[in-house]
Order: sequence, then structure tokens, then C-alpha cells
Amino acid sequence: MEEATQIAAQVTELSYALDTFYFLVMGALVMWMAAGFTMLEAGLVRAKNTAEILTKNVGLYSIACIMYMLCGYTIMYPGDFTGGVLQSITTLGSGLLGSSDNAAADVIASGGDTYYSNLSDFFFQVVFVATAMSIVSGAVAERMKLWSFFAFTVVLTGFIYPVQGFWKWGNGWLNTDAAGEAVRFLDFAGSGVVHMCGAAAALAGVLLLGARKGKYGKGGQINAIPGSNLPLAALGTLILWLGWFGFNGGSELKVSDVGEANAVALVFVNTNMAAAGGLVFALLLSRFWFGKADLTMALNGALAGLVAITAEPLTPAPIQATMIGAAGGLLVVASIVTLDKLKIDDPVGAISVHGVVGIWGLLAVCFTNPDATLKWQLIGIISIFAWVFITSFVVWFLLKLTIGIRVSEEDEYEGVDLSECGLEAYPEFVTAE
Amino acid sequence: MEEATQIAAQVTELSYALDTFYFLVMGALVMWMAAGFTMLEAGLVRAKNTAEILTKNVGLYSIACIMYMLCGYTIMYPGDFTGGVLQSITTLGSGLLGSSDNAAADVIASGGDTYYSNLSDFFFQVVFVATAMSIVSGAVAERMKLWSFFAFTVVLTGFIYPVQGFWKWGNGWLNTDAAGEAVRFLDFAGSGVVHMCGAAAALAGVLLLGARKGKYGKGGQINAIPGSNLPLAALGTLILWLGWFGFNGGSELKVSDVGEANAVALVFVNTNMAAAGGLVFALLLSRFWFGKADLTMALNGALAGLVAITAEPLTPAPIQATMIGAAGGLLVVASIVTLDKLKIDDPVGAISVHGVVGIWGLLAVCFTNPDATLKWQLIGIISIFAWVFITSFVVWFLLKLTIGIRVSEEDEYEGVDLSECGLEAYPEFVTAE
Amino acid sequence: MEEATQIAAQVTELSYALDTFYFLVMGALVMWMAAGFTMLEAGLVRAKNTAEILTKNVGLYSIACIMYMLCGYTIMYPGDFTGGVLQSITTLGSGLLGSSDNAAADVIASGGDTYYSNLSDFFFQVVFVATAMSIVSGAVAERMKLWSFFAFTVVLTGFIYPVQGFWKWGNGWLNTDAAGEAVRFLDFAGSGVVHMCGAAAALAGVLLLGARKGKYGKGGQINAIPGSNLPLAALGTLILWLGWFGFNGGSELKVSDVGEANAVALVFVNTNMAAAGGLVFALLLSRFWFGKADLTMALNGALAGLVAITAEPLTPAPIQATMIGAAGGLLVVASIVTLDKLKIDDPVGAISVHGVVGIWGLLAVCFTNPDATLKWQLIGIISIFAWVFITSFVVWFLLKLTIGIRVSEEDEYEGVDLSECGLEAYPEFVTAE
Repeated sequence: MEEATQIAAQVTELSYALDTFYFLVMGALVMWMAAGFTMLEAGLVRAKNTAEILTKNVGLYSIACIMYMLCGYTIMYPGDFTGGVLQSITTLGSGLLGSSDNAAADVIASGGDTYYSNLSDFFFQVVFVATAMSIVSGAVAERMKLWSFFAFTVVLTGFIYPVQGFWKWGNGWLNTDAAGEAVRFLDFAGSGVVHMCGAAAALAGVLLLGARKGKYGKGGQINAIPGSNLPLAALGTLILWLGWFGFNGGSELKVSDVGEANAVALVFVNTNMAAAGGLVFALLLSRFWFGKADLTMALNGALAGLVAITAEPLTPAPIQATMIGAAGGLLVVASIVTLDKLKIDDPVGAISVHGVVGIWGLLAVCFTNPDATLKWQLIGIISIFAWVFITSFVVWFLLKLTIGIRVSEEDEYEGVDLSECGLEAYPEFVTAE
Repeated sequence: MEEATQIAAQVTELSYALDTFYFLVMGALVMWMAAGFTMLEAGLVRAKNTAEILTKNVGLYSIACIMYMLCGYTIMYPGDFTGGVLQSITTLGSGLLGSSDNAAADVIASGGDTYYSNLSDFFFQVVFVATAMSIVSGAVAERMKLWSFFAFTVVLTGFIYPVQGFWKWGNGWLNTDAAGEAVRFLDFAGSGVVHMCGAAAALAGVLLLGARKGKYGKGGQINAIPGSNLPLAALGTLILWLGWFGFNGGSELKVSDVGEANAVALVFVNTNMAAAGGLVFALLLSRFWFGKADLTMALNGALAGLVAITAEPLTPAPIQATMIGAAGGLLVVASIVTLDKLKIDDPVGAISVHGVVGIWGLLAVCFTNPDATLKWQLIGIISIFAWVFITSFVVWFLLKLTIGIRVSEEDEYEGVDLSECGLEAYPEFVTAE
Repeated sequence: MEEATQIAAQVTELSYALDTFYFLVMGALVMWMAAGFTMLEAGLVRAKNTAEILTKNVGLYSIACIMYMLCGYTIMYPGDFTGGVLQSITTLGSGLLGSSDNAAADVIASGGDTYYSNLSDFFFQVVFVATAMSIVSGAVAERMKLWSFFAFTVVLTGFIYPVQGFWKWGNGWLNTDAAGEAVRFLDFAGSGVVHMCGAAAALAGVLLLGARKGKYGKGGQINAIPGSNLPLAALGTLILWLGWFGFNGGSELKVSDVGEANAVALVFVNTNMAAAGGLVFALLLSRFWFGKADLTMALNGALAGLVAITAEPLTPAPIQATMIGAAGGLLVVASIVTLDKLKIDDPVGAISVHGVVGIWGLLAVCFTNPDATLKWQLIGIISIFAWVFITSFVVWFLLKLTIGIRVSEEDEYEGVDLSECGLEAYPEFVTAE
């Protein structure tokens, strides 16, 4: 009898270990998405703005981690981490382990209800914040001041993102009703909370920033400004594809029994199929619309498929996931063309991929998840968009009034690498233009 | 007593979860090989053909996933997935979860015989198909029409590959005798089923396609056409090296007891050692043969080591694995030189790496695995090669007769990036030649 | 009763499997660091020396694996692997599995004291050796003979590294006193054993090799030689960041209970925070010191943060880890500037990142780990540095006397790609200068 109790405790501990390890591996894959955004954006800007976009990407990731540790995580999950970050501040420099985590005895007593390390949760969450902010850097590329961008990063990752994150994942009003019973807005891994959030912040910035010089001609013509290094863009897309297995797969939060393991496997399959569907259909559409197999559209199609399935990768069958992704792929091509017509200049297509397709993904939940209601999906979309767009607009506007958000015309012409970073990304390669 | 039964069930579920998670992580590493092939091939072609090879790689991966979901998996594993893909088709759009998986009760009742999620198996298998097809894109690079290539991709991934995959891994006639007892052809992770398969399809295409313009001079001289971006080629090789831990390590299929965990560890070690051996000996041979330490030979040597050990990474000791890889590294250099003499133009050396060395790997099984017989290894090699080569030849030939497989001379001269994709990979960098 | 024993055995096996799998995944992430160093160094050298640095990196990784298998591992862990490598040599070609591992019965009998596969330990350790050697290649870049470098690699990975590795991790005199009780030098994952070791070997090489032509002018001025491809440098840094989760996270060695899982999670969090802190503070310092946000300093700042936390990622709270990393980031900028003033020419800043900051990390252990003593940290630093520097100096010196270590002036001017590898990294791109 006693032996059985002891074994049961050991099994509970082992489950906890597996779930924590799974969470950390998935989190590491999401962290890897930072490299994906970095390569994607570096590949899609011009050579003269490459070092600066690299600096923005590595900088925003770092700032996001620090801000989320300092306050973002506590805002988003108010009950969770008081023994963690807050304690880590109070014990600063004391040499004590400031990051308490679940005691083994409590885990065993919980009978499996406490099933992973709090710190593994922080790790997983913190890389999500960075993802949201990575979306912004692409849209405002090639013309924004570096330090204004970093100032905005501080506010978005420390405050704007966590507030709406709390609404949904912190079990706020978007998640359930006051009784905690009726399901409201559904967003499995963050088509809205992460991707549309990033896109809304980006849109606010782009509107205040204006288009790049030379992008829109006087006669209304739209000038293509091709990316300077497409292998990097392809690499970035494939990194994001890989990282998304962690993004969606980890959002199941648990793997340690048959049902959960099956769920994670289905999420992996559906994530992969949606990306494949998005890529193929964006490629086909570009072939028939523009006459050529446009690689950048194909890459954005894959990303659109991934964004589209993120809101609900668990209830669709694989073929449905493929179709949800395919619709995302078609939509993103149309959206990129439309935004250009509206003179909203987004060098990498981030607003289309993460915003427009993010909305599509949130609506598509209604097709396969019987718990979803169109009403609450719309309320979620509108409230998150409104919150992020308005607060971001205010912050960008204050930055514009004070330190300014746009580089000088001359700096833009010479490239922001020299003006912001004092170096060039490819100093030896002769570039034409 | 009842408590013990309950704990036993929980342990069985936990084992299932670990094996499923292991399978998914290994599968994610294999998916990452898509990025490896993409970077390797982008680095080894000329700048003017880079965007197109990128498009081929991301496109073929996506098509492979879709075709394998639609029919390939069912052909290869006829018994397995009827409750999966087929059901997913029949429930299309119904909002029901179309992807059934093992019920917890069945797993527990099986006492561990059902030890991972069916969907995790699909995920692992689907990334293998894409690997086989990735081999083809490199060999036919710089001169093949994009959409003919994609048409071939549909047939190979949906039909040709799954049929021979069924012969071996679907427990067909190559695997065991009719009684299911006597072991026949041995191919642990696919030196034959995946790598030689891809190489045979590539060879058929290359023979019908012909060499690149300017590769072979009139006087019989062979003109080197160097790759345009060797850092990408090195990156691609290292990605493949990493991904191969998933490719071979996941092919053990199970990790959840001492024997299996040891086996996976040995596979990791041997995979790594074979690659190291292949690289060092290819580098040494190139140094003594050509007078210089040829980086591209070294990279192909590492890949040759990996291909060589793939047929049997479990029975060799680490030093034997190093030697099997080293022999692969020597062989690949000799093979690349020989194929050039035969005027078989393979821009990235894919036929040598995956075909010639794949055969070496299959034969080398006889050295360390007492269950292997030279007779059945040869039967396996010949039958897989014949099936894939002949069917591929027919498909390529039909494509040649109808839509054509080769771009025009002018398009080849200007680069297929412009003709097929309508954009350039490096639009700003000035290129010589 | 019997049933309980059987279940207990199964749980022990499952724990062993999880710990082994965790070790292999962490090891794969460390192997991935080879790609990180390769890309980082390829991005920071000039275009004309890129193919050679790629060759050095893939070559050193392979040589490190082979040498460590042949003798390094046995030197470092004398008791552990006699049934492994040695047996693998004696059974060479016999077709038997030469790599014995723990028997299931022994694991069960050990009651969990034997908790992972020996071969998974070898895999994890072997990728560490390669990391140490990767540090050297960057510092001696652009002017060292390829084969002299490889000759040094043989000695460092087969002998110099394993000896000091034995002192600490092989449970030698630096680890505990003779009674095996009192703790001495503390170095969790190798700020000293791996990073400072690599830096000491690099420093010895650099001193004997001299600076690159044109780096230091006659009037005492220092000429910046910018890296040719900063996206690769950024990619390399992000790869290293990801790989470091394996480097530090795997060094906990065990994950399978609540306490261990929490520990691994904390290590992940602290590793990430230290890198973020290092990046932000190096960027800020470069902004205020040089007037621009220097990307290469930011990247080195992130790496410095990672090196700094490596000696002790388990006792600091996350905010302390951020500060330890931040101090590393400030230090690395100052160190790079100082080394340049001392005319110690280190093209990628490896000696500063891994040596100077490695020492900082080892000293910083005293702030958060009450077991650490300044005395033993200093003894560890001095003895490891002295051993590696002196033996490396002797080896480099002997190489200089015999085959020479520096390429000719003409080869250096033309680029070592042509002289050492007989090819160019970017043959089509027109380069200025």
C-alpha cells in the first residue's frame, strides 16, 4: 500500500517532468522564431537597411524578455508568479534562489493538477511576446528611427500586449463569463492575442510614419521595392514554420497522457498542413494573377497558413486545416495588393499576414469548433484590435511629437544602416540601384 | 490492487506520451531538413537561378505534404490510417474532429503495444517523403521548368515513393517473407527507401533533361560552375546534419524503456560519427587529389557519411560508423568526378550523395548486422531502383512530350529566376560573368 | 506486491528514457551551435576569407568528434566508457554491437541512480569539445594556414581540453577535495572548462600569429575591418542563443523529477535573460560610446551574456541573471576596444567574449551560490588558463617551427579562400576594395 503510494508519487513527478520538458522544448522552438523574423525581414528589405533591421530584431527580442520579466508577465497572469518575478526583485543580489517554483510535495498532493514548472510557463510566454513585437519591425522597416522603435517596444511588451493577453489567456473577460463557465472568445495559440495584436500595433505605426520615399509615384503608380536577399527570406520562413510547431504545439500546455499526446500530434499535423496549403495556393494565385510563380508571395502564403490555423489547430481535420491555410494563402495575396492600392506601405507584408489573416483565422474557428460563436469571435477581434491600435497610436504619436519616429530624407536615401548603426550589412558587395 | 491497476494504466499512458512526444520532436527535426536542402541548393547554384530553386524547395515540401495526406500515406500503410485521412475527407467541413487517434482505453488495454499517436506517425512519415523529393530538385537545378517539376512532385510523392515505401516499411514483400518471419531487405531509416529513391528519380530526370549549357565543352573538357553562395551551402549541410538526428533517431520509433533509449542514443552517436568521418575523408581526398581543401567536397562528404549510416545506424560501434561514413566520403568524391566524366550533370552532386552512397550504405549493413544478407540487400537495391527509375522516367518523358521539361535557351542564359519567378534572388548585388 | 515491483521497474525505465531523451535533445541543440559559430565567423570575416573559415568550422567539428571518440572522452572520464569506445575499437569490424550501454536490469537495480544512457552522455560531451574548438577558429581567422589549424585541433580536442575537463567534470582535483566532500571550483556548464579554455588556446595562437596585415597602422591607428555579411553574423548569434539552452539546460543532467524539472526551467529562463541583458547593455554602451547602435557589439553582448551565465545559471534569480549578463555585455565592449589597443587582433572578438567574460562568469558565481569561494574560483581560473595557454602555446610554436602557421603575405592579400580551398565563397558577387 505504502509502496503503491510512493510509486504513484513518482509517476506524478515524472508526468510533471515530461510536461515541463515538453514546454521548454516548445518554448525553445518559439524563441527560434526570433531568428525566423530576423532572416525574413533582412531578406525583404534593401541592402542599405539590412543591418538596422537586424539590430531592431535582436534588440526587440531582448527588450521584450526584460520588460515581460519586469512587469508584463505579472500584468497578464496576476495570480501566478508573485513568488517568482516579484520575489526575484526583492531578493535581488541576495544570493538566494529568487525564483521559487512548485514544491514536489505540492505537486504530488495536487494529484497532477499542478503539472508543469511555473518558470517553464514564463519561458514559453516570454517568447510569445517577442513574436508579437517582431511583427511590427517588418512593417515599419526602412524608414523608422531605431530608438523610437525600441521605446515603443518597451511599452508594447511591458503593457499593451499583456493587458489584452490577460483578457484572454489570463482568464479575463474575453475568456469566460463571470461565473467562469460559458466559453467566450476562442483563440488557441494567438491568431488574435499575438498576431493580430502585432499587426494592429504595426498598422498604427505605419499610418503615422508614412510610406517609403519612392514607393508610390505621383501618377498613382506603385513601385515594387524588391527584397535584397531572398535566400534569407526563404530561410526565415522555414525557421518560422519550424518554430510554429512549438508555438501551436506548446499551446496545448500538456502532453503527458494519451488524449493530450494525441492532441499535440494533431496540432503538429494541422500546423504543417495549413502552411503547406497556404504556400501552394498563394503560389498558384500569383501564377495566375501575375503570370509568374512569385516566391515572396509563396513565402507569405505559408506564413498566412500558419497564422490562420493558430486560432484553432485542434478541432479541424488535416484536410480542413489545409483548406483553412489555403484560404489564408489566397487572402494574403489579395490583401498585400489591396494595401498597396491604399498606399499603406508594409515592406514585408506583415499587416496582411498577421492582421488580415489573423482575423480570418479567428473567424474560421467557427467552422470546426462547436464551442465558438461568431458573436464572441467578433467581440474578441474588435476589442483586441481597438485596444492595441488605439494605445499604439497614442504611443507612436507621442514619440512622433517628441523624439520623432522617422529618419531624415537624406538618411533614408543613404540607408538607415549608416545613420542608425554606423555600419553596413554587406560592406564589400557592390550594389546597384 | 485496484490502485496498482490504476497506476499501471497511468504509466502506460505516460509511456505513450513520451514516445509520441519523441516522435514529434524527431519529426520536427526532419522537417527542418527541408531548410537544409533549400539552403544547400541555393548556395550551390548560380545567383541567377537562386530564387527558382528556393521556390522549388518550398513548393515541393508543401506539395509532398498535401499529396501524402491525400493518398500517399494510405498507399504506404494501407491498414493504418483509414480512421484518419479517409475519415478526414468524408467529414470534410463538418466541424467534427476528422482525425481519430488511439483511445486511451485501447492503449491501456494493449499493455503498451500501441505506443504512439497515429498522427505523430503521419507527421514523421510525411516529412520523409519531402526529403526524398528534395533530392531531386538539386540534380535538375538551373534548367528545368518549374511547373513540370511540380507536376512530377505530385506523382512521386503521391504514388511512386509510397509504393516502394510500402514494400519495405509498410511490411510488403521486401520486408519479410509471406509468413512474416524471415527478415529480408534491411533499411533502418531509408538509405534506399528515401535517399536512393530520390536519386533514382533525379537520375531519370537528368538523363532526359540534359546538361546545363556550357557545362561540357566541345573538346570534352568539363567546366566547373561554382556555387554562388557557399555560406548558405555550409549552413544547409549543418541543418541537414542536425535534422538527421531526427531522421535516424526517430526511426527507432520508440524511446520509452532502457533498451530503446540506449538504442536511440547509439543512433545519435553513430549518425554524428559517420558524418564526421565522411567530411574528414572527403576533405583529405580532395586535398590530395586536387591539391586544395575543397569545401563543397567536404560538405558532400558529410552528407555522404549521413546517407551511408542511414541504412543501419544501430548495429555498428561508433568507430565502425565513422569508417562507414568515411568510405562514403571517399566514394562521393570519386562519384562526383565520375559522373562529370559521363556528362551526367548534377549541379549539387545529389545523385552521388544519395544514390551511389545510398547503395554503399545498404551494402554496408552486411558488415555489422548479422541479420542482413547480401542477396536481399541487392534485391532491395535493384527493385527499388528499377521501380523508381522506370516510373520516374515514364513520368518525366510524358511531361517532356506534353508541357516540356526544359526552359528555353534564352531563359537558361538569363537565369530561370526571371523566367519562372519573375524576380531575382539578389536584385541589388552586382554579379560578374 | 509483485505487480508493484513490476510497475516500479517500469517507472524507473521510463525515467531513464526521459532523462536520456532530454540529454539527446539538449546535445542536438549544442551540436547546432557548430552552425552558429560557422555563420557568426563567416559573417564577420571578409568575403575573400569566407570559404576557408567555413571549411575550418565544419572540419574542426568533425575532427573534434573523432578525436574525442578515440581518446578524449576516456581521458576526461576515465572510469566511464571502457565498455564503449575501447570496446568499440577492439570489436572493430566484428559486426557486434561494440557500444555496450547500461543493462535494463542494472538500471532497475540501481533504483534510479543510473539514470541515463552512457552513449547519450558521450553525445552531449562530444559536442562540448567542438564548442571549445570553435572559439579558436574565429580569433585566428583570415591569416592562419588551414592544415596547421587542423593539426592544432587534433591536439586540443584529443588531449588539452580533456585533461582540464577531467580536473573539473571528471571529478579531478578542481572538483572536490580528496575525500570527495568539500566543494572546490564551481563551473556549472563551462564558462571556464569550455569557453575560457577555447579563448586561452586562441590567445596563444593569436600571439604567435600576429595581426592581420593592415589592421594596425604605423602611426598607431587601428583600422576597422568590417565583417562582410552581417545577416550571417546575426543568424549565427541567434543559433548560438538557441543552442545555449541545450548547453546550459543539458548540464543539469537530469530532468525526471519535480526538483530537476524546475531546475532545468530556471536554467532556460536565466540563460535567456542573461543574453537579453548582455545584448541591451552592449547596445546602449556602444550607442553612448561610439554614437551609433553597433550591431556587432550587440551580437557580442548577447554572446557575452550567455558566456557569463554559463558558470552558474541555477542559483541566480532571473533578474540577477539579467544583470550578470548585462555586466558581461558592458565588459565585452570594453574588452574588444582594449584588445585592439594592445594590438591583439581577434577578428570576431572571441577572446573577449569567451575569455574575459568567461572569467567574469566564474567570479560571478560567488554572488549567488553560497557554495562558491573566491579562492577556488581563482584557482580554477588560473590553473585552467595556465594549462591551456601553455600547452597550446607549445603546440602552436612547434607548428610554427615546422609546417608554419601563417599564410604568405600574397595569399593573405588575395584571400585564404583561393590559397587554402581553391574556390571562392561568393564567386559571382563583385566585391569592392
